[in-house]
Amino acid sequence: VGEVWRLGDLARWVGGRVQGDPGRPIARVATLERAGPDDLAFLTNVKYRAQAERTRAGAILAAPGIEVPGHDLLLVDEPYLALAEILDRMHPPTRPAAGISPDARVATTASVGLEASVDAFAVIGDGATVGDRAVVGAGAYVGAGCTVGPETTLHPRVVLYPGTEVGARCIVHSGAVLGADGFGFATSGGAHRKVPQLGRVVVEDDVEIGANTTVDRGMLGETRIGRGSKLDDLVMIAHGVVVGPGALLAAQTGIAGSTRAGRNLTMAGQSGVIGHLTLGDGVIVAAKTAVFQDLEAGAFVAGIPAVDHRSWKRSQSLVRRLADMRAELHDLARRIADLEGKTEGTT
Amino acid sequence: VGEVWRLGDLARWVGGRVQGDPGRPIARVATLERAGPDDLAFLTNVKYRAQAERTRAGAILAAPGIEVPGHDLLLVDEPYLALAEILDRMHPPTRPAAGISPDARVATTASVGLEASVDAFAVIGDGATVGDRAVVGAGAYVGAGCTVGPETTLHPRVVLYPGTEVGARCIVHSGAVLGADGFGFATSGGAHRKVPQLGRVVVEDDVEIGANTTVDRGMLGETRIGRGSKLDDLVMIAHGVVVGPGALLAAQTGIAGSTRAGRNLTMAGQSGVIGHLTLGDGVIVAAKTAVFQDLEAGAFVAGIPAVDHRSWKRSQSLVRRLADMRAELHDLARRIADLEGKTEGTT
Amino acid sequence: VGEVWRLGDLARWVGGRVQGDPGRPIARVATLERAGPDDLAFLTNVKYRAQAERTRAGAILAAPGIEVPGHDLLLVDEPYLALAEILDRMHPPTRPAAGISPDARVATTASVGLEASVDAFAVIGDGATVGDRAVVGAGAYVGAGCTVGPETTLHPRVVLYPGTEVGARCIVHSGAVLGADGFGFATSGGAHRKVPQLGRVVVEDDVEIGANTTVDRGMLGETRIGRGSKLDDLVMIAHGVVVGPGALLAAQTGIAGSTRAGRNLTMAGQSGVIGHLTLGDGVIVAAKTAVFQDLEAGAFVAGIPAVDHRSWKRSQSLVRRLADMRAELHDLARRIADLEGKTEGTT
Repeated sequence: VGEVWRLGDLARWVGGRVQGDPGRPIARVATLERAGPDDLAFLTNVKYRAQAERTRAGAILAAPGIEVPGHDLLLVDEPYLALAEILDRMHPPTRPAAGISPDARVATTASVGLEASVDAFAVIGDGATVGDRAVVGAGAYVGAGCTVGPETTLHPRVVLYPGTEVGARCIVHSGAVLGADGFGFATSGGAHRKVPQLGRVVVEDDVEIGANTTVDRGMLGETRIGRGSKLDDLVMIAHGVVVGPGALLAAQTGIAGSTRAGRNLTMAGQSGVIGHLTLGDGVIVAAKTAVFQDLEAGAFVAGIPAVDHRSWKRSQSLVRRLADMRAELHDLARRIADLEGKTEGTT
Repeated sequence: VGEVWRLGDLARWVGGRVQGDPGRPIARVATLERAGPDDLAFLTNVKYRAQAERTRAGAILAAPGIEVPGHDLLLVDEPYLALAEILDRMHPPTRPAAGISPDARVATTASVGLEASVDAFAVIGDGATVGDRAVVGAGAYVGAGCTVGPETTLHPRVVLYPGTEVGARCIVHSGAVLGADGFGFATSGGAHRKVPQLGRVVVEDDVEIGANTTVDRGMLGETRIGRGSKLDDLVMIAHGVVVGPGALLAAQTGIAGSTRAGRNLTMAGQSGVIGHLTLGDGVIVAAKTAVFQDLEAGAFVAGIPAVDHRSWKRSQSLVRRLADMRAELHDLARRIADLEGKTEGTT
Repeated sequence: VGEVWRLGDLARWVGGRVQGDPGRPIARVATLERAGPDDLAFLTNVKYRAQAERTRAGAILAAPGIEVPGHDLLLVDEPYLALAEILDRMHPPTRPAAGISPDARVATTASVGLEASVDAFAVIGDGATVGDRAVVGAGAYVGAGCTVGPETTLHPRVVLYPGTEVGARCIVHSGAVLGADGFGFATSGGAHRKVPQLGRVVVEDDVEIGANTTVDRGMLGETRIGRGSKLDDLVMIAHGVVVGPGALLAAQTGIAGSTRAGRNLTMAGQSGVIGHLTLGDGVIVAAKTAVFQDLEAGAFVAGIPAVDHRSWKRSQSLVRRLADMRAELHDLARRIADLEGKTEGTT
């Protein structure tokens, strides 16, 4: 009973080219594995080439140059980007009904924008500002003096400590905590005295922050997540870090205090960067890596400690051959002893 | 004032054998370190053999073959399993009182089963179904269209995004977030466009999910946690992952998008698996490991990147002897130079 | 319009010495980068020496022996500790207004101390005790039988499972979960049976626990966080662990079940310790390290598996030179073959 489109419509949406029947009806998008004759599947990762051969999908979205016999194709230069466009058109995002739940507690000095939605058990503190068409989910906490930009969504149970600023069109997932105290202690005689954390967190526009991720406030200044950055779940950004714009931080990554990253930092899962470093633009950090030194723009690093990823690969492959090297070393030692014996004899 | 059992009663519960006095009164179970004469202690890990020698416990639960002079023993083939049975009998789990708190908000189109309990400030969305004898803790959020199976417990502050399905007899600990958007972005010209995440999370029966763990929804299809899987705290399961049945994922582990694991995957703490992999049944991943490749059934791997755990141990032990190898190499080089000098001389 | 102090006042607060003009007005503390002529900046990390040369700050807080021409200096032996004192004096911490929100749910059998503050949507269970001047943030959950010490702050959305004990003057950040079930399962025939987790969590006085950190309850006994310990965000402490006093655990670290650490354990980010170990006093664990063995007091370890940090550094530097070693090995093999050829010829 859903809407049905023609393959040619989809091609028009994304500036693509149909190879096959542009009139083919498309009911939905599905994975290669699950798609049926009315579905558009997509081949955006070469790992799934074999699945494409046997898919029952009516049509396949792919990059030019791909051939999948027996299937209509929708060819476009950036198929993953096209997929986003097609899905957005087929499933326009919905917003919850505007209005403030009678079960929310909004301070009289707070301001909630036009068509904003504040769900049950949310708390909005003194002097906080929630922008137009913003969504504050159930049980979310917006501390005193916070700013939530227009069209931003705070999912249920997000916590913004007082003074946190979140830009426009951001998405903050459940359980994320922005603005908790940075981890700053002065240790003297074995005791750790708390250093007051008086700064704040600033999240620029178009940022997405994953579930249960934590971004701590600066000690005095800001912790800043630059425009268009995307943080996955369970990421940790410590006090005073500046990251972005355009950072892409996968799950369970962490950046320690005061480190500053340039544009488009990419960190794969479970990697980390220690504090007080400077990373140039476009740095890529492989999964599980630990960065202990400043990095030039464009660096692609791996390992603990992080080194150029090709060096790391070479080292790791050599580590795997250490037993051979050791055997060869023993063999050479034996042969040298032999030679020494003979040479001894000859002189 | 608690109930008191006889050691022989306990033996009957678990099909074990008493070596000593079956009439010995047992008031409770305690650790070897803290147990007194009325307590049953347990020796399920050989590391604690020395503690068993000096425990004040009246009786010790252990596997056949163990001898601890001066103590009555309860011997059973699977003592840790027996411990679970004994504790369950001594401390039958309690359920909170049935009923919906007047401070919960349950949508009129939601359905809450018989004898279910919904605590204060919980929210149950449109069309959601909560099974019989299920428990929805304080401040938990059950989004629209979710299903919570019978006898499942959602502890306080759990969040289920809309459409999440949780089976029967599951336990989801506080702060866990199921169904947040997967981390999917199409990057073009340095900007990251969100790819709509339209799938859902399915948690099968008898699953336990730890505190602050996150399981993201599939992009189009499902993220699925198979029957009887147990996830510890702060675990991350990305979109489209299929894991289980019977997975055992320790704290701070992560599995990246679209990876599929067979039965009984075991991951030790802080290990990770990258996306788009296939892992066979019974794979074991050691602590801190990073799996970058498909694994056969029964593989036991360690290291970054993961290799067979014996190879990893051997490599690591060789790495620790690298300084010796290097010294030996220098020694050989010197001796060769000597030989070359002499040979030069002799020819 | 804020208060203004004299540099000499600050020196008196911290027992420091002014080098320059004690009458210089100081309006606030700021980073070297952002400070202006009325600000006190601080140089507590030598990495920022160059920034100190160009700061616009009126005065700089530093250790004796530092010279920064053109700036008044406030010299004190422990400048980071002095910074804490100065910030506390300039910005005395504020507490929310005392009283119980009408939107909180406090059991009739619970006890809330004098001047304590309980915010909206907080839940305090049967028989729980909240100390004088304690703060229970919005939506926090204090389970039945919990104890929250005087002057302790639970930030919004903290969860204390039933029976958890938190001492005096603690700070627990949002999303932290204390007392969830330990990860204990008895596996038999591929099925994992839950072992009841009947113990509890005890947090001693003056502890700080970061956002979304989890501390699980003991199986039978306690999980204990010793006095004055500081845990960062997303840390995992498993059942039965005893850590502290004075532990300092950075973000995303984890300690597995039943491990016992001595005083002043320091763990850098993303490091881990497996279960059932004993760590002596003053152990230091480097970032990303995995500790697989007991450690003596004073050990400073790094690597996976953890070894003495100097050995680890040496090994890592040798690993990076493996390609050279391999080349040298080939060269020696060639030269030996040459020698063998010649020796063959001569004998």
